[in-house]
Amino acid sequence: MFNTLCVIGVGLIGGSVARAARKHGLCRKVVGFGREQDRANLQTAVDLGVIDCFHHTLSDAVLDAECVVIATPVGSIESVLAMLRPCWDEKTIYTDVGSTKSNILNAARQLFGKSLANFVPGHPIAGAEQSGVTASVADLFVNKRVILTPDIGVTSSEAVRKISEFWQAIGANVETMTAEHHDAVFAATSHLPHIAAFALVDMLGQKDEQSEIFKYAASGFKDFTRIASSDPNMWLDICMANKNEIIPLLHELQNTLSKIQNMLETQDRQRLFDTFTYARKARQRFLDLLDN
Amino acid sequence: MFNTLCVIGVGLIGGSVARAARKHGLCRKVVGFGREQDRANLQTAVDLGVIDCFHHTLSDAVLDAECVVIATPVGSIESVLAMLRPCWDEKTIYTDVGSTKSNILNAARQLFGKSLANFVPGHPIAGAEQSGVTASVADLFVNKRVILTPDIGVTSSEAVRKISEFWQAIGANVETMTAEHHDAVFAATSHLPHIAAFALVDMLGQKDEQSEIFKYAASGFKDFTRIASSDPNMWLDICMANKNEIIPLLHELQNTLSKIQNMLETQDRQRLFDTFTYARKARQRFLDLLDN
Repeated sequence: MFNTLCVIGVGLIGGSVARAARKHGLCRKVVGFGREQDRANLQTAVDLGVIDCFHHTLSDAVLDAECVVIATPVGSIESVLAMLRPCWDEKTIYTDVGSTKSNILNAARQLFGKSLANFVPGHPIAGAEQSGVTASVADLFVNKRVILTPDIGVTSSEAVRKISEFWQAIGANVETMTAEHHDAVFAATSHLPHIAAFALVDMLGQKDEQSEIFKYAASGFKDFTRIASSDPNMWLDICMANKNEIIPLLHELQNTLSKIQNMLETQDRQRLFDTFTYARKARQRFLDLLDN
Repeated sequence: MFNTLCVIGVGLIGGSVARAARKHGLCRKVVGFGREQDRANLQTAVDLGVIDCFHHTLSDAVLDAECVVIATPVGSIESVLAMLRPCWDEKTIYTDVGSTKSNILNAARQLFGKSLANFVPGHPIAGAEQSGVTASVADLFVNKRVILTPDIGVTSSEAVRKISEFWQAIGANVETMTAEHHDAVFAATSHLPHIAAFALVDMLGQKDEQSEIFKYAASGFKDFTRIASSDPNMWLDICMANKNEIIPLLHELQNTLSKIQNMLETQDRQRLFDTFTYARKARQRFLDLLDN
């Protein structure tokens, strides 16, 4: 599919893209790029056979690449795009794997204007407990969703087609939507739950320091708070990048909690029962989707 | 330990108490009690060998019992205590397994006054995805915490000792605290997280009805919302019984969310990072406790 694939940021996601591309014969050569301080990690990636070689100079790394995958943390993607500007090649296809899309697409629009045609923003819905290239696997994206958010009327359909085929070839289910819709959906199903978990554990952690409460928490609490163990740096970047979508949802969640508080205060058993019952049915709808 | 054990409400918890008592030779006979409409379930309990026989008349069920375990849903425990009043025997030890304790202790105080000495309120921190006597197992309480909340200066130390030994004999770790402290702790680590999960799924369920969002939710969402699939009837009773502890916590959670909303609005990266980092460390403290 591509002679040379360049992966910028060879961690869990970038490394898994490289492994998968190699496994399915989608490229002849994988070149990695990282900063000087990432040398050890890049050398590990070479030793593991994830990439063939690496560069610390971006123009060297992308020189022969027919496809460039930006797989750095979401907070760095905008600056990587800026660094790519001097060596941007209209014959190369660029894509990224960031968890937020409008901020990246807007940055790309400002940097590249019409030559944005060969940039296909993407978001694979896949991850793992572990991070780093040592945790990368070729099957990470099998049966996972990948969302592409091309710029309507700007991104070339040929570039979208090629990137779609690439993800499909490594086992993913590809869907296309606008960057705005993507960010609205993920603010609701991912970013808001993460913030709610961080908020709850933050508040209870302070209580636990005053008087032991965590020792009495059961397995339900472990599941509920799992996402509060997520990487603070990554979530800071995601929350900042998508704050315009998240802020109204945060406000809405406070309203919902306030309504429930009112039901308790007025002992409105029927409305409280209806709320719990609706939530239980809604979650079942989600589980049914997950099974299909 | 007891010649005859009476279990009022032979479901997952009551059935598991009966199985465990039998397995460890803690009683010679187990008598079940349930309403007429529970006949089929009680017959199943007999067929499974969980109980020896059952009655639909409470005075018959408790007649020879040296220990009576009230294992009905938390919303019925107060009325079971009232039904027990005419046949209350000061030589019998009574206990319960309700998830809230102050409401039960207060109801018992009003009903029994000084003859409350032989009632030891309890709360085993154990459960399962399934409910009903068919899901009951003898090992449900092994290495699980059981909290007893005797009435200081009223409950007889002999009764507390016997009930402690009973739970320890079936593998549980017993702790004693006041009913008030119990309810404050569980409002924080169990009731508030459940309400937060119900609230979030309720709010997102309504969004999903307008525009598909659940199809893009990932495994983190599944874990985070698991407790929103809990039984609405049970949680209605728990929330109502412990609303005085829950209401201030609900208010506090709204404040914490409002603070985070403010950090996003003012782009206060440092405070947001500190909040996420504190939460992550607090959860790690909880996980370390869980491992030990």
